[in-house]
Formats: sequence, structure tokens, C-alpha cells
Amino acid sequence: MRKFKVTFLPDGKDIEVEENTTLMQAAGKAGVYVNTICGGKGVCGKCRVQVINGKAKADKHAIALLTKEEIDDSYVLACQTRVQDNLEVVIPPESRLEAEQILLTDSFVSEAASVESAHFEPLVQKLYMELQEPSNEDNIADSDRIIRELKRKTKYNAYERSLGCLRELGSKLRNSGWKVTATIARQNNGWKILEIDTGDTNDNNYGLAIDVGTTTVVAQLLHLQSGKVIGGEGTHNLQSNYGEDVITRIAFACGKEQGLQELHKSIVKNINDLITSLTDKHGIDRKDITAIVAAGNTTMSHFLLGLMPCSIRLAPYVPTTHSFPQIKAREIDIDIYPEGILETLPDVASYVGGDIVSGVLACGIAEKPEIKVLIDIGTNGEIALGNNDWIVCCSASAGPAFEGGGVSCGMRAIRGAIQKIEIKNSMVQYRTIQRAKPRGICGSGLIDCIYELVKNGIIDQQGHFNMSTKNDRIIVKDDEPQFIVAFANETESGDDITLKESDITNLIRSKGAVFAAIKSLTDYVGIAFNAIDTFFVAGGFGNYLNISKSISIGLLPDIDPKKIQFVGNSSLIGARMALLSKTAFEHTADIANMMTNIELSTYLPYMDEYIASLFLPHTDKKLFPSVDYWQS
Amino acid sequence: MRKFKVTFLPDGKDIEVEENTTLMQAAGKAGVYVNTICGGKGVCGKCRVQVINGKAKADKHAIALLTKEEIDDSYVLACQTRVQDNLEVVIPPESRLEAEQILLTDSFVSEAASVESAHFEPLVQKLYMELQEPSNEDNIADSDRIIRELKRKTKYNAYERSLGCLRELGSKLRNSGWKVTATIARQNNGWKILEIDTGDTNDNNYGLAIDVGTTTVVAQLLHLQSGKVIGGEGTHNLQSNYGEDVITRIAFACGKEQGLQELHKSIVKNINDLITSLTDKHGIDRKDITAIVAAGNTTMSHFLLGLMPCSIRLAPYVPTTHSFPQIKAREIDIDIYPEGILETLPDVASYVGGDIVSGVLACGIAEKPEIKVLIDIGTNGEIALGNNDWIVCCSASAGPAFEGGGVSCGMRAIRGAIQKIEIKNSMVQYRTIQRAKPRGICGSGLIDCIYELVKNGIIDQQGHFNMSTKNDRIIVKDDEPQFIVAFANETESGDDITLKESDITNLIRSKGAVFAAIKSLTDYVGIAFNAIDTFFVAGGFGNYLNISKSISIGLLPDIDPKKIQFVGNSSLIGARMALLSKTAFEHTADIANMMTNIELSTYLPYMDEYIASLFLPHTDKKLFPSVDYWQS
Repeated sequence: MRKFKVTFLPDGKDIEVEENTTLMQAAGKAGVYVNTICGGKGVCGKCRVQVINGKAKADKHAIALLTKEEIDDSYVLACQTRVQDNLEVVIPPESRLEAEQILLTDSFVSEAASVESAHFEPLVQKLYMELQEPSNEDNIADSDRIIRELKRKTKYNAYERSLGCLRELGSKLRNSGWKVTATIARQNNGWKILEIDTGDTNDNNYGLAIDVGTTTVVAQLLHLQSGKVIGGEGTHNLQSNYGEDVITRIAFACGKEQGLQELHKSIVKNINDLITSLTDKHGIDRKDITAIVAAGNTTMSHFLLGLMPCSIRLAPYVPTTHSFPQIKAREIDIDIYPEGILETLPDVASYVGGDIVSGVLACGIAEKPEIKVLIDIGTNGEIALGNNDWIVCCSASAGPAFEGGGVSCGMRAIRGAIQKIEIKNSMVQYRTIQRAKPRGICGSGLIDCIYELVKNGIIDQQGHFNMSTKNDRIIVKDDEPQFIVAFANETESGDDITLKESDITNLIRSKGAVFAAIKSLTDYVGIAFNAIDTFFVAGGFGNYLNISKSISIGLLPDIDPKKIQFVGNSSLIGARMALLSKTAFEHTADIANMMTNIELSTYLPYMDEYIASLFLPHTDKKLFPSVDYWQS
Repeated sequence: MRKFKVTFLPDGKDIEVEENTTLMQAAGKAGVYVNTICGGKGVCGKCRVQVINGKAKADKHAIALLTKEEIDDSYVLACQTRVQDNLEVVIPPESRLEAEQILLTDSFVSEAASVESAHFEPLVQKLYMELQEPSNEDNIADSDRIIRELKRKTKYNAYERSLGCLRELGSKLRNSGWKVTATIARQNNGWKILEIDTGDTNDNNYGLAIDVGTTTVVAQLLHLQSGKVIGGEGTHNLQSNYGEDVITRIAFACGKEQGLQELHKSIVKNINDLITSLTDKHGIDRKDITAIVAAGNTTMSHFLLGLMPCSIRLAPYVPTTHSFPQIKAREIDIDIYPEGILETLPDVASYVGGDIVSGVLACGIAEKPEIKVLIDIGTNGEIALGNNDWIVCCSASAGPAFEGGGVSCGMRAIRGAIQKIEIKNSMVQYRTIQRAKPRGICGSGLIDCIYELVKNGIIDQQGHFNMSTKNDRIIVKDDEPQFIVAFANETESGDDITLKESDITNLIRSKGAVFAAIKSLTDYVGIAFNAIDTFFVAGGFGNYLNISKSISIGLLPDIDPKKIQFVGNSSLIGARMALLSKTAFEHTADIANMMTNIELSTYLPYMDEYIASLFLPHTDKKLFPSVDYWQS
């Protein structure tokens, strides 16, 4: 098999690949992100790249998605084009996954998060000790001497020892003048001594909290001795090169030999890259990272550990496991302290993962009798509702509309995305991320837009354009009415940014799916919306969300907006709490166990709720008393 | 560094080694056993070999131990001769460690050994299960489905899972039609699922019980499903090439870089060789061996796991550890089932090891209120005394006399060793092992001989020759009186086999050390000898021992000989019990904890007892009322 070098511009990253590798695969291996929605099936047309040097072979049907000008300019679809030569490939801005505003930090600290400081007890600890030398009167074995001192310093009695810790223990103790540091890690029923170092290495102890998201992977570096956050770093999930959503990735993993391995290695590379970046930036030796706690949805956790996820996407949606064993990070080639541990937070169901369990921990839902809700809206809307006594949860298949999929002008919340919109008569005011020229509309902008359109009578409550309205922004193109949000002369591409009636239909379906899920859960436990004490909205989506407009389109229930809180990356917060607190970590297992999953696809009332929700804001007026645009 | 090939005859085994490697080291690497007592210091002269081809460089002082004829015949000392050429080396019979009658089997089964069948529950088990396929009504995760079934089949609730077991679990379950076999291993606080196999592999489950002795390594292969013994195999400890006794080997391990590694690898090679031999003989796949339980003295256990033993030989005699973690056998390169476990039985003290703990288990000492004694006589005489309430133990430095060291005609209990002696007037009757021509006298023969000499008035009770006795077997050579046991014309070498006065002195010291230890223990707990219910004698030594003669020379206490039982390889029996019974295995930790070690080197009464014991049978006549040869 011949090999060729592919260089990706403007980054200049290059990679050697075998003949007939797709450009998309090559990009993945080079660590270059290329936009894709369809997962490389050649149907979304989002992965346009320009081959400026060398010969590449494009599959025929891919050409249909390109204009004649593009073809003349050597544009191809990365997923449908195979390497046949040494190549230079330019990734144009719209095909690049640029730095989103990934949620690294969290201003939010819930009541429960105080668990962190109250029970500060990291999963891996280093304890410096000055031991008494053995004598005839005190001649216990070396390892017993260590354990005796550990018992004095901690409240724990049971200590296992790794073979590595026992080897050369004798000489380390004697060479150091009996002054050593023990590295201990939480284990199933106690603690395990991982290693004994000579002298005081107490301070060289770091941990990572990681949110393994479908789209982004975020890591926070913590000093485990003090609990301080040293820094955070986020990156796109390299698995995006295999498809945007978990279903596409599972199909890839299970449809191809070594498919799972490829996806597993992608996420491991993500994490190793984040570690490199964080340790370089903060001048830390990566071998001093002793513990990682990862939270992800069920599929991501399976990929992280290299577990077969195939049955997750097939009824009855059974994963390999809901709880994950503690492993050594090096077992999956994560490059930290060789004995360093990796814990993966437990799942509840195939579509309610460790990220939600982590969020429930972070939001303190399981701590007090008040009823709270956590909602994380992405391709799936995951919802948990409950208190210290019970928690129900579900996952609604919202579709990718809020993340920019299935909406012609939709895009992620990255630079140039319209995130806020107001319409007064024919005047449209919008704001883009980083105040760049508009490139499309992200989730929060779409919600604003729908609200403004229905409020202004431009669309009706079913989402149909009211063609009698006089507004020069309403046009009909290809027989479909649409609304121009930004005119061609304002936009980056020089094309109008418009919202079509079919886009609106998709958005109504998405918001309907989420609301129906919330309603199904409250009905299931027999409570009214006003019984909810706090309604937490998690994820990047939430950060730009206009609460009252979200209520007004019927996405969120019509409760006092003060009860609604954005919690940022609650999955990351929970992972950090678990890393810093053995109590919090152990609590995640209890939380996962107490969460009852309602499988909506087989839950009959859900479909009725869904149909009733396909209206702005809802077919049942009583549910949305505060909404101001009811017609008639 | 140049390399040369050394071929050892008559075996024909060859090995490539670096220039200046000693012949002894080369033999070790080739897996050829060469006799040595001094551990390669060039002072015992037992490692004579003949270089028949090639040039070898002998150190000067080594030549002093060889006769002129031997030097002319190209004899050298293997430990003092370095490879400088491709060589052919003949190991003469007297320098070979021939197959001793290693204690493989055990006719002895004590009351306690019934624990074995009563609580049959091997440390690794395979459980075949036919599972219900998931449905909407029963959609628990794959791993929960396995655990649910395990809980039904066993009485245990907690199951950990290895990452290996989870990987591809989904496809294994589905490909097998939900018919799988789970391999589970006992862990600290429950069980761990090591692997899931498709179909029924129930029956392919074997274990090894291993007695890691200083001189010999013995393994027994067991079918873990049924508990049946499949076979046994014994071999010399390859570490013998580094010295006969543990002290010499510790000195080697701690005096030289990679010294510990060499000794560690020797014992691992021993075990892998035993496994090869056993699995070949019985047609078993070594990958079906899932568990090993090893019992050895403290030093051997340290070597087995590669732990630094250096402080064991220095006051206050502190080992690295008394209890050993469960490891995967492959962590130390033992080639069985990749997930297979190795357990090492716990020690009590630096000179009371897991072999004695195992023996105490095998003899049921800790089970009942009756007071019992276990004694294992080798270079060290280890003694445990107690019942279900308390156990005291100690190790007496008996010296190598009973194993053939420090006695001019002494040898191990191998072919040609005189093992029984009777003297009537000038008539000597003896019996050799395998009825071969006599080559020397082994331990049991030496005891017989001392008894017969004092009984017949040839020596007095202090061990001095009674030169007035008329006996043509008494001669004086090099100013030292000696007794001819076998005349030159009867022996293999054509030389007289004699016992010198200095040999007798050494033997009296050895038996004195052992008896003083027994006496110290009974005095320590304040009991008389007749309070002892059973007196177990373990080890190869015991098997040929004449009980009443052993009592009569003052080695064993003067109790009813019916109370004295030979128990064979009690270390191996205990290891097997622990392998087959979780209860028995866990009991070893309790036993080790309840055993109080009396450190004789710092226990003042011991020295007085020792001095009082340097007499045949003892200076205190009241202690040996049954002895018939009291003079005056």
C-alpha cells in the first residue's frame, strides 16, 4: 500500500496516510477538525475543502453538492475524496471547527457544591511521613510501618499495596532516612498505596476533571493537595470527524473492523493533547497527575474505555455497563503518572449518562427535599427531576436543530453566530458571537428568532408564515417562504441568512420534544410545574439563552424565571467535586442508583404530549398563562 | 563483550554467555544444577566439573581444593572458573543435584484438612450461565445481567469487573446466544469478574499449589472445578546456583546490581518450567491455569515477588512485608492465563514464613483447643506451638548439618545417601537411598549414627571419641578421631565414608539449637512436653527420621512417640487447601496474625537452653527419662 503526505492549511499540520484514505480520515489523524454533520456520508456538504496541490480522487455523487465555481476552484468534500498523491489541502473557515466558547469555568456553585470543601478528600493523596527506624523493640515489617503511620494520619484502616509500592520499599526507606511520601488512591473498600517516594513530594499531586462531551472535551487541572483549580482547557471531540452525533459514531464503531479502536483512540488523543497543553502552560510534569475523573454520556464513556457500544442504539437500548471500573490511566494509554487512576462516573441508562449524574451531583438535586430539575439541551435533551428522596430522568430526542443541524442557516455557538435577535416591525437587531460578521444562527438566536417571528405575527402559532403580513424580509424562494435575518451585504459569505418555514418546523419539533419530556416527567411523579423549586439549565446552550423567550416559545415550562438558573458545564463541576471528594465520588453511585429512567420511546403518554407541544407555545393555553402573543 | 557457547554434559544443554561468566552462572542460565554449599565462594569444593573442550580460566585459590590428579584431568571448581572460549563441560555425578525424593504427595491428611472439602470454594471459579436476552421489560446493562446471574449462582453480592471483561462483553453475549462462562476471582472484599468466554468453558479451570522451598520447588496441579489433584512435579530451586541458604542468596541479591533480578528470575523460571512439565504431561493448556497459591519462607516469598530482602539478614530482621498483595501472575512473567492470579501466603516474621503458616493450616493447629506442635527442620528449624487460642513460633538457626553441610561426609537425601544405620559391636548395617552404592550420609542417617555411636559407647555424651573402645572402625587421621561408616571398597567414590569428631560436634550443635528452641517455646507459654497433643514433623527430613533415635539424641522432646507424626510437605498441603478454599485462604491471614514470634537471637533464656542442650541427649537427665544409654 502506497503512502502519501497530506498537509492541512492554514495550520500546516501534516500526516502520512495510506493511499485511498479519505481527506476526512487524514484530517482526523492529523488532529485537524473538519466540520461535518452527517458523519462522512457525503450528504451534508459541510466538509468542503480545497485541494491546492496534488491529485485527489473525489467520489462522483459528492460533486452534486458543490457549485461549478467550487469545482473549478478544486473544492471537494473531505469525506468523499481519497488521497492518491502528496496533497496540500486548505480548510476554509466555514469548514473549520473554530474555537467555540467552550465552557471551561463555572461561576455557578450550588449549595451542594459546598460538599467539595466540607469533605475535601481527593481520590489520590500524597502523605509525607517521617518514620521511626526499626529497632528490636519495634521491628514490624517496612510495609506495616508505612501503614501504621497512614492509619495515624488518616481515618482509614484498610490499605492495600501495589506490587510496585512494595518493590524497593526497603531501600527507599533506608536511603531516605525514613522520610518518604506515600501516594494513596481510593479503592473499592478503602485505599491502596500506589507508590512510596523518597523525601517530601507532597506537593506534586495534580488531578484532572474531564467532561467528555459529544462535541467538546473539557479538562480542568487541579492541585490535589490544596483543591485549587490550576487551569482549564477545552477542545473539539476528535470523534466529530466520524460524525456529529453518538448514533453515527456507534454505527461507525460497530460497522467496521477497528472502528471502535479508532474512536477510542480519538478520545484518548483528545485527552492526552489537553494534558500536554495544560501541563505546558502551567509548567507541571504530567507524571504528577495522579487521578482523573471523567464524566460523559453513556456512549462517550464506552468509547473512552474502549467498550463496545453497539447495543446502545438498538432497542431495548442496553449498554455494556452503567458503572465503570477504576482503571489505571495507562491501561488506555493516557499518559500521566504510571500508577495514576481513571474513574468514569456512572450512567443511569443508555441515554442518561455520567454527565447528567455528575450534573445532578453539582446541582445538589439529591441533597434536599425541594424538587429541582436539571436539563441539558443538546441533540438529546436530558432531564432529571427530583430531590433527596427520588429522581426521575429521561432523554428526549430533540434532534440537532438547537445545535445548528437541520436548520439551513443553523450553526454552532461559535464566532460569527447570531446569538440574540430582536424584531420590531421590519427592523431586525442581532448580536453575533465575538461581534464578527454573521455566518449563521446558533441555538439561542434561533429561539429568539422564533419568538420574535410569532410575537410580531410574521408566523402563526403552528409556525406557518403569515403571508398577508407586510414585511420586505419575507421572501419566497424555491416555493418556500422564509425570513431574512441578515441581508447579504451584512454577512461574511455575502449571502442572505434566512430562516425557512421548514427550519421553523424543525425547531418546533425540537422544542416540542424537550417540553413534552419535561411534562411527561412531572406528570409521571404527579407534580405541577410550580412545585419545582429550581430549574437548572446546563450546557453551552444555556449560557446565551433568553429565559423568557424560551418560555414563550414553549421550550421551558412557564414558571417564575427567577427559578431558572444557568449552571454552565455541570458535568465538569460534578467531575471536579468527585475528584476532590471521596464522599462526593461515592455519592455519584448512589445518585445513579436512585435515578429512575423513563424510556420515552416506549412511554405512551409521551407521544401525546409531543403532539400537543407542536404549537407555539403549546396547544394547552393554561400551561403558558404568561405568554403574551396568544392569537384570538 | 565477546560471547561463548558452553555445553553441559551429560545433559547436552547449552547456553551462550559473555566472556568471564563463571561456569556456575552459565549452568544456572542453562537450567543445569551444580552442587554448591558455600554459594559460589570457592570454599566448599562441591562444584567440581570437568572441562573437556575449550579454554577456561580458573582462579588460583580454587586449585587448592583439587587434587593433582583432578587438575591433570581438567577438573575445576565451577564457581571459580570463567568462560574464555566455547566450552564443553562435564558435570560429574557428585556435583550434580540429582532428583531427590522431593515430597510431591502427601498421604497425611489432618483433621483440619477436611476444611478443604467442607468449604470447597476455589479462589478462581468458572461459572457457565444461560442468560435471558434483554427486552423492553428487562433492559438492564449487559454487565448487570451477568452480575445478577452470578448473585443467583453464588452467595456473594459484590462483583468487580476488569476492563478486559467489559470489553467486547456485548458482542460475546450476542454471538454466543447469551450462553457464556464467567471467570471470577476472589478479591479483597468480594469477587472480580476476570473474563467472559462464549459458551461453556467451565471445565477448563486449573490451579497450582506451590511450595517455594529454599532447596526445592514443588508444584501440584489441581482441577479447580472438581478439586482433584491432577499431578505433581518437583525441581531444585535454581537459586541454589547462588548459594545453599537464604543468607548467602540475600547477600548476593543485595550486593550486586541486578542481583535481586537474577534471583527473582530464577524462581520464576523454576515455576514456568514446572508448569511446562505438568501441562505437557497431563495434556493441559497452560492458559487454563487461572490461579496459583505459593507458600515459601519469608526470603523466598520476597524473591518470588521481586521484593528487596536485604534487611531480613540484619538485626532487627525486618522484611519488606509480611503479607503479600494478590497479583496477576503475568506481572512477574509467570506464563499462565493472562488474567490469572498469584497469591502468596503471609509470613509471621523474617524467619517464620508462609510455609510455616501454610503448615499450621494443614496441621489444623489453629482449629482446636488441643496443643499441637509443627516443626520443620532444615538449615533453620522453624517451630510453631499452640492451639485455636494462641500460637507461638520461632526459628532456630540449626545450621546445615542435617542437610549435609558442615559435615564432611554429609549429603542431601538423594540417591546413594546412607539414610539408616545400625551398629552392633563392630558390625555396621546401613541402607542407602535407592539402594545405590553409598556416597555420603544424609540427615536421618547422621541421627542414627550419632545415636548408635553413643549407645555403643564409641563416643561419650559430649560427642568425644572414647579412644579406649576397641573397634577397628575408629581411626585417627590428621590428628582427628573418626568412625568409618562405610569402607572404601563399599563406596561409590572408593574412599571411606567416615564421621569425624568435628562432624559430631556440629551435629550436636544443630540438634541442640532445635531442642533449645522447642524448650524455649514450651517454657515461654508455661507448659510441659506432655501437654503436647500432637507433634508434627514436616519436610523431607522427617520422612526417613527414626523417631525414637531422634528423641534419644535429644533432638526431639521425650514424649510418647505415638504423638509424633510425619506430615510430609505441609507447606504444599496448606497452599493447596488455600487454593481450593476461600475460607482456608482467608484463614491463613488470621493464623499469621495470631502467631507470636519469639526472636531467639534476642531471647535470653534461649542461650542457656542451648548450652544445656550441647550434650547427648541433654544435661538435664529428667528431661529424657526414656533414654537408655545414660552413663553412670
